[in-house]
Amino acid sequence: MSKQLPLVAMDACCAPLAREPLTQDQAVELSQLFKAMADPVRLRLLSLIASHAGGEACVCDLTDAFDLTGPTISHHLKVLRESGLITGDRRGTWIYYRVHPEVLARLSSVLTTTEFS
Amino acid sequence: MSKQLPLVAMDACCAPLAREPLTQDQAVELSQLFKAMADPVRLRLLSLIASHAGGEACVCDLTDAFDLTGPTISHHLKVLRESGLITGDRRGTWIYYRVHPEVLARLSSVLTTTEFS
Repeated sequence: MSKQLPLVAMDACCAPLAREPLTQDQAVELSQLFKAMADPVRLRLLSLIASHAGGEACVCDLTDAFDLTGPTISHHLKVLRESGLITGDRRGTWIYYRVHPEVLARLSSVLTTTEFS
Repeated sequence: MSKQLPLVAMDACCAPLAREPLTQDQAVELSQLFKAMADPVRLRLLSLIASHAGGEACVCDLTDAFDLTGPTISHHLKVLRESGLITGDRRGTWIYYRVHPEVLARLSSVLTTTEFS
């Protein structure tokens, strides 16, 4: 069963949280994204993928950065995919991962503060 | 025992995660902040405080928005305080909470993507 977030629901979401109170639905959606990022390995994976040449990376590009088994890395990539933060595209032997830049951009926008932006 | 994050360590942190890979230390620090935000109640509390008139709110301003007991709300406020996302200042009967806008601004900056910013 796919637990991927409905990205379409994110379209209306969200004004900066410092501008107006988040609704319950917005808070639930956002909390799922932050939960996916609430792990150092997943944050580093996200960053390695986003900053990789061409904006995409396969597991073969990612494993050397970690002292972790392949299945553990695959588990974290699955969590990132299910959250909607990254996509995976199988080409030949490998799955190539890309970030959803619009999801990161929305999260960035939600955290924008008037005072410091 | 205080578990508050050393805010000074955040000063050097962080370039957008899409620009260069996060270091292990940066990823650990950021994951603790995202963990504090990985809960709908805490996100709504953060948003209620940040968007409240004058940029501060006491528990008396927050409880009506939730169908939760006082101790539960206090627990979530404590997690937010320990993460460094908010501060609390006791004045008379109440503790007044404010967000650390520079912490939100740093998180926003980390999530900025070149393509969409």
